Amino acid sequence: MKPVKVGLLGLGTVGGGTFNVLRRNAAEIARRAGRGIEIVHAAAREYDPARLPGIEGIQVSDDAFKVVDDPEIDIIVELIGGYSPAKELVLRAIGNGKHVVTANKALIALHGNEIFKAAQDQGLMVAFEAAVGGGIPIIKAVREGLAANQIEWMAGIINGTGNFILTEMRDKGRDFADVLAEAQALGYAEADPTFDVEGIDAAHKLTILASIAFGVPLQFDRTYTEGISNITRDDVAYAGELGYRIKHLGFSRRTPDGIELRVHPTLIPERRLIANVDGVMNAVLVKGDAVGPTLYYGAGAGAEPTASAVVADIVDVTRVLTADPENRVPHLAFQPDALSDTPILPMEAVETAYYLRLCAQDKPGVLSDVTRILAQRAISIEAILQKEPVEGATRVPVIILTHRVTEGAMNEAIAAIEALEHIEDKVTRIRLEHLDAS
Amino acid sequence: MKPVKVGLLGLGTVGGGTFNVLRRNAAEIARRAGRGIEIVHAAAREYDPARLPGIEGIQVSDDAFKVVDDPEIDIIVELIGGYSPAKELVLRAIGNGKHVVTANKALIALHGNEIFKAAQDQGLMVAFEAAVGGGIPIIKAVREGLAANQIEWMAGIINGTGNFILTEMRDKGRDFADVLAEAQALGYAEADPTFDVEGIDAAHKLTILASIAFGVPLQFDRTYTEGISNITRDDVAYAGELGYRIKHLGFSRRTPDGIELRVHPTLIPERRLIANVDGVMNAVLVKGDAVGPTLYYGAGAGAEPTASAVVADIVDVTRVLTADPENRVPHLAFQPDALSDTPILPMEAVETAYYLRLCAQDKPGVLSDVTRILAQRAISIEAILQKEPVEGATRVPVIILTHRVTEGAMNEAIAAIEALEHIEDKVTRIRLEHLDAS
Repeated sequence: MKPVKVGLLGLGTVGGGTFNVLRRNAAEIARRAGRGIEIVHAAAREYDPARLPGIEGIQVSDDAFKVVDDPEIDIIVELIGGYSPAKELVLRAIGNGKHVVTANKALIALHGNEIFKAAQDQGLMVAFEAAVGGGIPIIKAVREGLAANQIEWMAGIINGTGNFILTEMRDKGRDFADVLAEAQALGYAEADPTFDVEGIDAAHKLTILASIAFGVPLQFDRTYTEGISNITRDDVAYAGELGYRIKHLGFSRRTPDGIELRVHPTLIPERRLIANVDGVMNAVLVKGDAVGPTLYYGAGAGAEPTASAVVADIVDVTRVLTADPENRVPHLAFQPDALSDTPILPMEAVETAYYLRLCAQDKPGVLSDVTRILAQRAISIEAILQKEPVEGATRVPVIILTHRVTEGAMNEAIAAIEALEHIEDKVTRIRLEHLDAS
Repeated sequence: MKPVKVGLLGLGTVGGGTFNVLRRNAAEIARRAGRGIEIVHAAAREYDPARLPGIEGIQVSDDAFKVVDDPEIDIIVELIGGYSPAKELVLRAIGNGKHVVTANKALIALHGNEIFKAAQDQGLMVAFEAAVGGGIPIIKAVREGLAANQIEWMAGIINGTGNFILTEMRDKGRDFADVLAEAQALGYAEADPTFDVEGIDAAHKLTILASIAFGVPLQFDRTYTEGISNITRDDVAYAGELGYRIKHLGFSRRTPDGIELRVHPTLIPERRLIANVDGVMNAVLVKGDAVGPTLYYGAGAGAEPTASAVVADIVDVTRVLTADPENRVPHLAFQPDALSDTPILPMEAVETAYYLRLCAQDKPGVLSDVTRILAQRAISIEAILQKEPVEGATRVPVIILTHRVTEGAMNEAIAAIEALEHIEDKVTRIRLEHLDAS
């Protein structure tokens, strides 16, 4: 069979990785795919030919639209990132009758519904395995491997930068700002770390995962997002004393009233496998009604791990190039006309357990006031940790773990606690999930 | 589209689970597959209708060949297990032009080459996700999700019974025989536990994994297999003191000289994620050249976890029923004419690190004799743990961890050590793998 012809948009980290993996493993990949995969045209404003042996053999344009309009090309691989011109390029590629592979989570999370509709209308595929969890084949696992299941919930460590920071804070007792500065120096974190540490990147990925798990349209704007920049090393240490680790989780659960969709720091029991996923590594824990809990672990970013997912998508697209579009795996796992209008649950209605840290004056009766406020709202306490006041200090930290309760009830309780005379500062609230098999 | 018609061979644990999952999640599955999946005919000698609500609506034959010969059926799902009549049934189904889904690892490991050839000749698919790792979509992950990679090695905990036994031995300091008896009482282990504890079941699964990872024919008879029945609670405890856990691993690695294919007890560093996979759970760690290390975790057995994989295969087959056979994912990941004749490495040529436990008389010079024997064969020592003799005892256990060396050299060294005057009994030898990213 003739080789499949690929146009590559971007020769940066992931684009360069894709070029190199396709070239290095060309024989192995052709043995699997049954035909060669050939990059014939790439787009890049600037690139380093020394990092890309063989690049001199292909046409490189500085205008990505030239590649998208190249009639020779079967598949466009979009690795530029960002919203624009990525969106215009992808839609134009579809308009030109080309299949698309992309690693662009922001694009899919925000504009995926429109892009998939355009592809569907043309009988084309848009593949996006690399958009979530880097090289981990998590989209394929959930979309195809768990197709028998009603997915009940998913919990993912899906931002490597955030996980690196929390791991260092725990292992070395360091402060958030200190580790972030190091992560920036190491190149793990961007100069503007907002997307990573404030959970936006994780929310993009969770939006995509939830759609393929639950068969709902992509709804990034309904995702609750809270970052890790307020986590202190004390919280990390107290959580550890209680047998928990703090991870920045993307969490989504199907409930009778709607779908929970939330990214926030979360205490999880340290004996869970996912609690032991450290450094820049990613993992997603998926609970299906038939299969039970399953976990997928690997590098969530980086040139070649991401390229691994991009190339797997190219092979998948290559396989179905000539197949009847009706028999393909649907973009969002469920057939487009079978998506559900199950609502996303508002955060106030979400039920979870909580870690609360209060700063109380060392006076009798304070703890009794706090526990009364919780009891009045039927919030049961799982554990209390009262630290000894430091010599001469008049304030003591009190840590309370609660059982599950709605966010709305907890908001009220926290407001009442903060109004108490002997409570200083705001209450620190970190959500807690047991992630057990039930 | 018309529903796909399925014939189910077997209504035991996995057959019953498959029947129930397909029925309970029928709507969800049809939303994914784009058409209904309907069991129209099942085969079972005896079954409990109370466990199978809805079974009264379908034809049940006591002769499985009747199902295989039923002209109405598109896909045969073989869940009888064993070699015969499973093999005859599968080949007859293929002869009748039906696609096949099976959970039968023994059948695939031993007769897969012949079965896939027959299916290939007829343009049919044989899907076998449930044969390895129960509900974990590990076949799909390696065959499709990692298609960009040269797989370097794989390490799997792929027998739940063995992992349960080793976990209990470690957690509770119990003896092998004691835990095995409990596992049998709990139904985790068969009355004849040979397949599980002697590694045969794991070897079946490893044979399959290695074929799809490395693109070689199935070669069960070349798999080195060693069980866990000789592991003592002392070995488990000493390994723990040294920072390791003992797991019954299936391990396969590509080397320049051939492919390692081996199942044996293995020390692995306790900080590795896979070292923390406990109880009856399974996990496979796969190292690809592009993606790096990835891990897949879940229930390796049980009615519904296994059914999850069986039904995912049915959905996959359903999708490609009308597709061009040349564009399908090949049975063993690589195109049939692109399989490699890379040999399986003989065990003597395998290189690994070792845990050795000697029983030495408490006399001066013994340790020096042992280390001399190792040094003469260029075997370097990573750690030595010499236990205090118990009050009044004249024998002391000595534990040695070595660096990597060939099995052949280690066999010679062990023979020389056992010939020493002051060494009693046989030397206990457990292989050790660091499973680091390199």
